[in-house]
Amino acid sequence: MKVGIIGITGYSGSVLYTLLMQHPQISSVELYGREQEKLILSDLPAFGKNPLRVKPFNANNIQQEVDCLFCATPAGVSGKLIGPFIDSHFPVIDLSGDFRLRNEKHYENWYQQKGRQLPPPHKITYALPEFTSSYTPYIANPGCYATATLLGLAPLARAGMIEPGSIITDAKSGVSGAGKAPTATTHFPFINENLWVYRLNQHQHIPEITQQLKDWDSHLQHIQFSTTLLPITRGIMVNTYAKLSQPVTQSIIENIFTQCYAKKPFVRFRGAHLPTIKEVVGSNFCDIGVIWNPTTQIVTIVSVIDNLMKGAAGQAVQNFNLYFGFEETTGLPRFPLYP
Amino acid sequence: MKVGIIGITGYSGSVLYTLLMQHPQISSVELYGREQEKLILSDLPAFGKNPLRVKPFNANNIQQEVDCLFCATPAGVSGKLIGPFIDSHFPVIDLSGDFRLRNEKHYENWYQQKGRQLPPPHKITYALPEFTSSYTPYIANPGCYATATLLGLAPLARAGMIEPGSIITDAKSGVSGAGKAPTATTHFPFINENLWVYRLNQHQHIPEITQQLKDWDSHLQHIQFSTTLLPITRGIMVNTYAKLSQPVTQSIIENIFTQCYAKKPFVRFRGAHLPTIKEVVGSNFCDIGVIWNPTTQIVTIVSVIDNLMKGAAGQAVQNFNLYFGFEETTGLPRFPLYP
Amino acid sequence: MKVGIIGITGYSGSVLYTLLMQHPQISSVELYGREQEKLILSDLPAFGKNPLRVKPFNANNIQQEVDCLFCATPAGVSGKLIGPFIDSHFPVIDLSGDFRLRNEKHYENWYQQKGRQLPPPHKITYALPEFTSSYTPYIANPGCYATATLLGLAPLARAGMIEPGSIITDAKSGVSGAGKAPTATTHFPFINENLWVYRLNQHQHIPEITQQLKDWDSHLQHIQFSTTLLPITRGIMVNTYAKLSQPVTQSIIENIFTQCYAKKPFVRFRGAHLPTIKEVVGSNFCDIGVIWNPTTQIVTIVSVIDNLMKGAAGQAVQNFNLYFGFEETTGLPRFPLYP
Amino acid sequence: MKVGIIGITGYSGSVLYTLLMQHPQISSVELYGREQEKLILSDLPAFGKNPLRVKPFNANNIQQEVDCLFCATPAGVSGKLIGPFIDSHFPVIDLSGDFRLRNEKHYENWYQQKGRQLPPPHKITYALPEFTSSYTPYIANPGCYATATLLGLAPLARAGMIEPGSIITDAKSGVSGAGKAPTATTHFPFINENLWVYRLNQHQHIPEITQQLKDWDSHLQHIQFSTTLLPITRGIMVNTYAKLSQPVTQSIIENIFTQCYAKKPFVRFRGAHLPTIKEVVGSNFCDIGVIWNPTTQIVTIVSVIDNLMKGAAGQAVQNFNLYFGFEETTGLPRFPLYP
Repeated sequence: MKVGIIGITGYSGSVLYTLLMQHPQISSVELYGREQEKLILSDLPAFGKNPLRVKPFNANNIQQEVDCLFCATPAGVSGKLIGPFIDSHFPVIDLSGDFRLRNEKHYENWYQQKGRQLPPPHKITYALPEFTSSYTPYIANPGCYATATLLGLAPLARAGMIEPGSIITDAKSGVSGAGKAPTATTHFPFINENLWVYRLNQHQHIPEITQQLKDWDSHLQHIQFSTTLLPITRGIMVNTYAKLSQPVTQSIIENIFTQCYAKKPFVRFRGAHLPTIKEVVGSNFCDIGVIWNPTTQIVTIVSVIDNLMKGAAGQAVQNFNLYFGFEETTGLPRFPLYP
Repeated sequence: MKVGIIGITGYSGSVLYTLLMQHPQISSVELYGREQEKLILSDLPAFGKNPLRVKPFNANNIQQEVDCLFCATPAGVSGKLIGPFIDSHFPVIDLSGDFRLRNEKHYENWYQQKGRQLPPPHKITYALPEFTSSYTPYIANPGCYATATLLGLAPLARAGMIEPGSIITDAKSGVSGAGKAPTATTHFPFINENLWVYRLNQHQHIPEITQQLKDWDSHLQHIQFSTTLLPITRGIMVNTYAKLSQPVTQSIIENIFTQCYAKKPFVRFRGAHLPTIKEVVGSNFCDIGVIWNPTTQIVTIVSVIDNLMKGAAGQAVQNFNLYFGFEETTGLPRFPLYP
Repeated sequence: MKVGIIGITGYSGSVLYTLLMQHPQISSVELYGREQEKLILSDLPAFGKNPLRVKPFNANNIQQEVDCLFCATPAGVSGKLIGPFIDSHFPVIDLSGDFRLRNEKHYENWYQQKGRQLPPPHKITYALPEFTSSYTPYIANPGCYATATLLGLAPLARAGMIEPGSIITDAKSGVSGAGKAPTATTHFPFINENLWVYRLNQHQHIPEITQQLKDWDSHLQHIQFSTTLLPITRGIMVNTYAKLSQPVTQSIIENIFTQCYAKKPFVRFRGAHLPTIKEVVGSNFCDIGVIWNPTTQIVTIVSVIDNLMKGAAGQAVQNFNLYFGFEETTGLPRFPLYP
Repeated sequence: MKVGIIGITGYSGSVLYTLLMQHPQISSVELYGREQEKLILSDLPAFGKNPLRVKPFNANNIQQEVDCLFCATPAGVSGKLIGPFIDSHFPVIDLSGDFRLRNEKHYENWYQQKGRQLPPPHKITYALPEFTSSYTPYIANPGCYATATLLGLAPLARAGMIEPGSIITDAKSGVSGAGKAPTATTHFPFINENLWVYRLNQHQHIPEITQQLKDWDSHLQHIQFSTTLLPITRGIMVNTYAKLSQPVTQSIIENIFTQCYAKKPFVRFRGAHLPTIKEVVGSNFCDIGVIWNPTTQIVTIVSVIDNLMKGAAGQAVQNFNLYFGFEETTGLPRFPLYP
């Protein structure tokens, strides 16, 4: 198969490129960009001696040249470009947030963007692959925070066991999640040896989390959600606290998680062992640990992912595999980079 | 004045030493240790060319030689040594946890220690200086996590506004909080680029937090408390989430904090600006920001301290100043080390 | 093919395990350890849910069970165990330093070890793969510092262009190079935000560097060699300074490097672009940049590797591929983990 | 005394501000900036709740309002502004490089600046305080790399013992040395877990080093000089390698250093103990270790400073103290921030 990427210069795009180049079912990877983008990339030295050729974006040409397009673009880009692909049922895996939200106002409020050409809902799959049974050609890849949070909440939420209004999520991310453009808060002397709570209750991944939670349990209407920037490059840890609507024990909760993820190759439920970020960085794993506190009657769920893998490029390849009928794990590393 | 330190080799003790050596009201700092401790320290090169002399601990001699003793010892040490000082009303400022808990069983359960010689409660002051109006000669300096958590909760807890059972604290600490002894989880390749939730609901600072909260509001019986090790050397950030027992607005909450800390030189209430750790490292400040979420009806309080300063040695000097009637800020740095 | 590893618990061994498990020519990886080692490993959570089984070391059994043995053992271990394998011409790839040095006294002096059973020199290949044309069954994999230093010096040393006595190497390594055992100098609060020059002119990789340099140019007798511990987990950067014995220009030097490495897939000569460590971490690449200073008449060579890949496990797989006639790059990642 | 600062918003300026505000001989610190600079600073939260007032720069007013002016400005600023102060013999301590170089062409070549109003040389003191016996009112504070390098070389250079043409310096700096403006190479995901050799033989501190070396020993004409960006915030380590022009031993060299720095309060000669960066960060110390290698006949000198203290603001205060006749150590911290 031949695939294309739009948005190779960002972190997600470049990690995606390395995965696709090593995918055994893919014979070539074409790169596309805006017309004004340079055709020769000199700023990706990690990729080898040979420069990469980026062609200008053209929806017709792309559909001729490749079998699937990945969008690793900032918010507001694919929403305006992807219409022709959806019209012709051409497979697109979109790592951006442009079509994750079904509600137009939510999109405008949370992304501060306008003008996306929203297709009918039945043409879109918001695809958290562990819980996606059928795919449309257009696939909205979940956000990094959303992936870690939803995988942590899914077993209890889908069982209808979470007390509405009780979910509090304290999420932390490495700096690569903030993208490649230098800013005052990604400047090394600022964030090194530091910790910064940003966009409290305002992160744009909140509405896709609540949208999915409501699909699983309509009583779950909102979520308290903090995001903290960590002085590390890669990785997300999400601590979620919740009260439950029925009596439980540690053992009951562990059984629910174990059954939910028994056949999911990329979720490693660790029981009461709370995973660390490094156990997953470089891999597509989401590791989850859970502890019930009988004193406070609160369950703590800790989930960790590599934000650029399971939180972006790795999950995109996982969705690619599932959509095209390949083994779910094809082309994805079996181990994290450790230590 | 002359002062003594027992426990100079640990991080808290060595920071305390540097503060006391630069304190304008202190003429000499004597060091004490166990008999088997070497009298010459070669492992504190940061302190200068001249070796430090450590004398063997002897309660009588110490009371002759100095006017106040600081204990920077591990759990279980001062509880056995301090009896003679309390008997003779000699000033002791204890950075360890040995006499923070009034309840003997709590001490044994949480510290896994026995054999402390507990004096009558009226001879002990658990001294969070911002809320301590009178001192006994024996002063129990609060723990680092407890200091940041309690300063964050104090304004609302003392006002009786927190809904019992709703407090969830997600606390994070730099590695110096784990002490000077190398372990598998303080090994650089483990914790660097990593994040580790340890002792969930099991940290030994929990009972001193609930003991103090109950003193402020007897309805506050327990707290959900997670502790996370950060890949930084110094600093603590505590995120506390709570529901309130009465209708509020952001403005109402800010007023309560502002009034509570108006005259406290080391607490900088920042309003809705959530502080970062670096804004306090190297100083004795506790910075606090607070945000009310009207959707979830949850207040988020973010408090940051330098765990070795306001969380240990700096607060001990602050208590020393207040006990002896010096200006509260004497001998403490006015600014953090920034950047 | 079936392969075995002795020494899975160390960093090199565990990285080697992940590479061999994903190598397309290898069907199974057996693990061996000392008898007193536990058969079940609970401390390698990065490897997955299933525990790994470690069998007790037995030279006869190993030769029955696998086709090649990798030793990822500390100094002094394989030197005593490997005799039977060499006697029977069984393939062994040894990541330790036990047989790198031909001179017995050098081994004893630099490694502080005795009792290795040194086979005849013709049965040993010190295999820096870029410059190894023929292999014996026993292969001594070069050390991490030696690999980066020798690849940087090789083009000019092999051309006889370096002025004897002029080589000064300032080498820096991430903390994983110091191994998995916690120590005072790998304790996070010590090395974080720090830099430490250790074992100046005393690192045990010095004699293998000079041994190899003398093989290339007998006039190169010694080397000034500093080693610095960096506050990063993985990666080595080596700055080498030397005077040359003949007039040159930047262009002449670049040509020599270009020709030397034209056909070497894992050495990326970058011309006057000085590579950074991150451009190779996670890969088996050695990137090299070089700059001639006409004012001081000194050439500066900067070479970078991932100490656990090209400096250990990756290079071992490269040697494995070359020895068994597979494509040199088989089973090795094509890209670094970036960012 | 009253003092003024121009350039408070940079790292050096802000550290300088904290030092001067705590200096016992200084009653007030006035801040000056360009006219278009905002008068209220909101981006220095580390400094306290109260905003700082910055007045527009006016040479006449400043000379009325304060007794000494500190310039913490980028290259090219003070060179154009300071003329009136030099004309009226008004004390100026300039942390920038504008008047460090006596040679106009050197200044233009290395700083890419033009238009400085160079006063006669006898009105300028390039003041490395350990070797400055008399001061003019205008004081050029040495650069950070220059300070660490020159203090390491001074004892042997001043004794005429260094073989000309043999000096090789491998210098490393934390990221705060690159200033406060975010760039691609100070972006956290770039430099974290990385190491980057930049401006090889091109750093603008090279000519002030050679200018000073030539003053000490006219045979020392040039220096090989590499600069490496470290993934730490503060601190510089300089490794200098040199051949000597006469036979020596470790003991002879140690005696020379010991005598040279016996009475210098901020230089701690550590003998053969090679200092780490953390032993000086937060202080004005320069720690130096030295090791003679009899095999290669090369001496290695390792010197460390805090780039913002002894490399900038601390040294400026030291020069201030010496110029005005205060005790050299007044107002400077006696200890580093450790750990």
